[in-house]
Amino acid sequence: MVMKKVNIGIIGLGTIGSGVYKILNERRARIKKLYGIDIKIVRCCDISESSKRKLKISNSQFTKDFRVITRDKNVDVVIELIGGTKVAYKISEDAIKNGKNLITANKALLAERGKDIDKLLSKTGKNINYEASVGGGIPIIGTIRDSILINNILSFQGIMNGTCNYVLSLMSRKIEFQDAIKAAQKAGFAETDSTLDINGKDTAHKVVVLCKTCFGLDVKLKDMFIEGIENITSYDLDCSEKLGYKIKLLGIGRIINNHLDARVHPALVRQDNPLANVDNEFNAILVNSKNLGPFMSYGYGAGMLPTASAVVSDIIRISREDSNIKINQAKRLSMYKIDNLESKFYLRIELQDESGNLGTITSILGQYKISIDKIIQNSGDSKVKGVPVIILTKKNKFHTVNKAINKMKKLKFVGNNPLLLPIEDSI
Amino acid sequence: MVMKKVNIGIIGLGTIGSGVYKILNERRARIKKLYGIDIKIVRCCDISESSKRKLKISNSQFTKDFRVITRDKNVDVVIELIGGTKVAYKISEDAIKNGKNLITANKALLAERGKDIDKLLSKTGKNINYEASVGGGIPIIGTIRDSILINNILSFQGIMNGTCNYVLSLMSRKIEFQDAIKAAQKAGFAETDSTLDINGKDTAHKVVVLCKTCFGLDVKLKDMFIEGIENITSYDLDCSEKLGYKIKLLGIGRIINNHLDARVHPALVRQDNPLANVDNEFNAILVNSKNLGPFMSYGYGAGMLPTASAVVSDIIRISREDSNIKINQAKRLSMYKIDNLESKFYLRIELQDESGNLGTITSILGQYKISIDKIIQNSGDSKVKGVPVIILTKKNKFHTVNKAINKMKKLKFVGNNPLLLPIEDSI
Repeated sequence: MVMKKVNIGIIGLGTIGSGVYKILNERRARIKKLYGIDIKIVRCCDISESSKRKLKISNSQFTKDFRVITRDKNVDVVIELIGGTKVAYKISEDAIKNGKNLITANKALLAERGKDIDKLLSKTGKNINYEASVGGGIPIIGTIRDSILINNILSFQGIMNGTCNYVLSLMSRKIEFQDAIKAAQKAGFAETDSTLDINGKDTAHKVVVLCKTCFGLDVKLKDMFIEGIENITSYDLDCSEKLGYKIKLLGIGRIINNHLDARVHPALVRQDNPLANVDNEFNAILVNSKNLGPFMSYGYGAGMLPTASAVVSDIIRISREDSNIKINQAKRLSMYKIDNLESKFYLRIELQDESGNLGTITSILGQYKISIDKIIQNSGDSKVKGVPVIILTKKNKFHTVNKAINKMKKLKFVGNNPLLLPIEDSI
Repeated sequence: MVMKKVNIGIIGLGTIGSGVYKILNERRARIKKLYGIDIKIVRCCDISESSKRKLKISNSQFTKDFRVITRDKNVDVVIELIGGTKVAYKISEDAIKNGKNLITANKALLAERGKDIDKLLSKTGKNINYEASVGGGIPIIGTIRDSILINNILSFQGIMNGTCNYVLSLMSRKIEFQDAIKAAQKAGFAETDSTLDINGKDTAHKVVVLCKTCFGLDVKLKDMFIEGIENITSYDLDCSEKLGYKIKLLGIGRIINNHLDARVHPALVRQDNPLANVDNEFNAILVNSKNLGPFMSYGYGAGMLPTASAVVSDIIRISREDSNIKINQAKRLSMYKIDNLESKFYLRIELQDESGNLGTITSILGQYKISIDKIIQNSGDSKVKGVPVIILTKKNKFHTVNKAINKMKKLKFVGNNPLLLPIEDSI
């Protein structure tokens, strides 16, 4: 085996960057032995010196100016781990223009500037790897590229935000939303500002990255239906469980009738769906393809060492392969409109506790030809104001069900915030 | 992208071989576009002509003599898909000696002759890929090699036999063993002779392959503890479920105290373990490594197209990479003895329904300092003769619990076949 030398520069020594530094120091000899690749960290960059001190990085191996790395002729691979999109794009641009391979864990960068980065790369023939941008340590990008893409990918569904999943798991133990977020912060599974996690935007970034990887299609965030978990109550989780479901925040991408359906929202997932049992801080991505059928990958979606391990696997991959795969982007598909989504639905609606109110609601559903599968009306054991009624509908259009809900909202005895969630019944 | 030409020969046109032929014919253009690899099937070999006719393979592309393929100078990769170990080894030997790369789906061959094949390969510098040998279509071997091996792998646990898992899933719906097997055969998930599946030997072959892949260690089947699912009753599944567990046939490998613990047996798996929810014909492998933590891969463990897709991914992999990874085999670890296994246990024992009998049993457990966690004694709702008593023990040694059981067996009022299963409590 001929030893291949690979020189890298790490830009950003936050949690992931520090993890990459640690793993490479610890595993350099093992990686040489296993893969015949000698990875040398030429230089690290950060605007602060605190990680430099902690990791005992020498002055000669450290810089505060990323250009010292992106323009170093000895550097083969630039690893961008600063997060954000502005400076991260500048780094990527400079690295690619200087003929480097690029590795990033930055889903926001890929979601917002991925097309520009691809354009730059196409001029140099160099590659980009981004395993850590989706599912943290879970090797899903590599698996899709190496093993699943042979087949036509039909759809993916993923639990791709550990914060939301942890919060929902706590809520299924009757802890309310705000308390669950606090507990998640205390346990280290949620940032102090977890807005991007909770509102679904972080998951949406990952959906964009997966749409590109699975289908070769560019999606813009603004064209996606994105809903977070803010309106879920522990009562919803409780009712769902009694009905044989769990509620999960899903990132979904699928090709349907020559359209791309890409969206993020909480959904009811049947308890025998493998995604239903992905709890706490874990992530999982289920990919359905023509010959393979359903395939799911499960593991830690965040954390220093899991995510850093994914970055290290990217370095090895980029060093072993002559060229990245070229995902066919010939076809441009227009976006599928969420209004057209046909699904069973979970509807929670609060009614004043008077006789006849439920009858009025069901008759509105009847007017829109929305068939009811099940109704739960449990006064007493809920913390929601009024009497919450849970209705499971049979298959109908999102648009039609929303119309019915808008009509219900105009009634005096109906509470302000009905909750409507699709039911994902099949794998 | 420079187009790489790869010429292959397929030996064995059974289910998987026919699948490979189909996928390659259907996907050749896609694979060229994606990976820059042009895969040409130079020739196929089978002793029967029935697949040749079905697949409309021309005379010039077909042979009944495998040497026509293994000795063809134009063939780069030989794909052995005949199963069994004798002729399959001859094919492998001849292919390697003629300087070919080898792809196989044959776990029995790898388990029994893997060391010999490695020795032959080391002389030529050529590679072997065997993705389809474990977990059917699930890309677990590639994932371990490319993404997990960077880290130290601590253990793996897998549901790796679809027949057993399907049978156990039926039995959890109160269908008894013999009927469940018949139903599995009818549904196409069990062979007419499913002995190797049911008795755990098929899973053991896969454990050997995974021990090699994860730890670089050779294991002999005769050194492993192997137990099948023949003694499980639907009553065991029912009781386990009530106690918060499922029963799964597990293949296990782990490094413990500098020993290799490799075994196959049914075990109780806690319902929140992701393996617990792998039902029906599905397979899953959970790998625990130092930095990544628990990672699970889930999908179809058998079937023509999933397995063939794994073989095709091997062709692409072997064509893209200069060299296989070299798993460190320096250390030779001795085998961990199952007798030393420390675990909680599930014990089912049949007693004649007389007062005092249960007291005698528990006092025997007391003599061996085996603490009881739970007891279920449910006369009436069981099909097992006598009164089955279920005892969950606290942690103890397998050896000690077996001693106690042997003492119990000597008592007149104890039935013939007590069942003892380890409880896998952690992920």
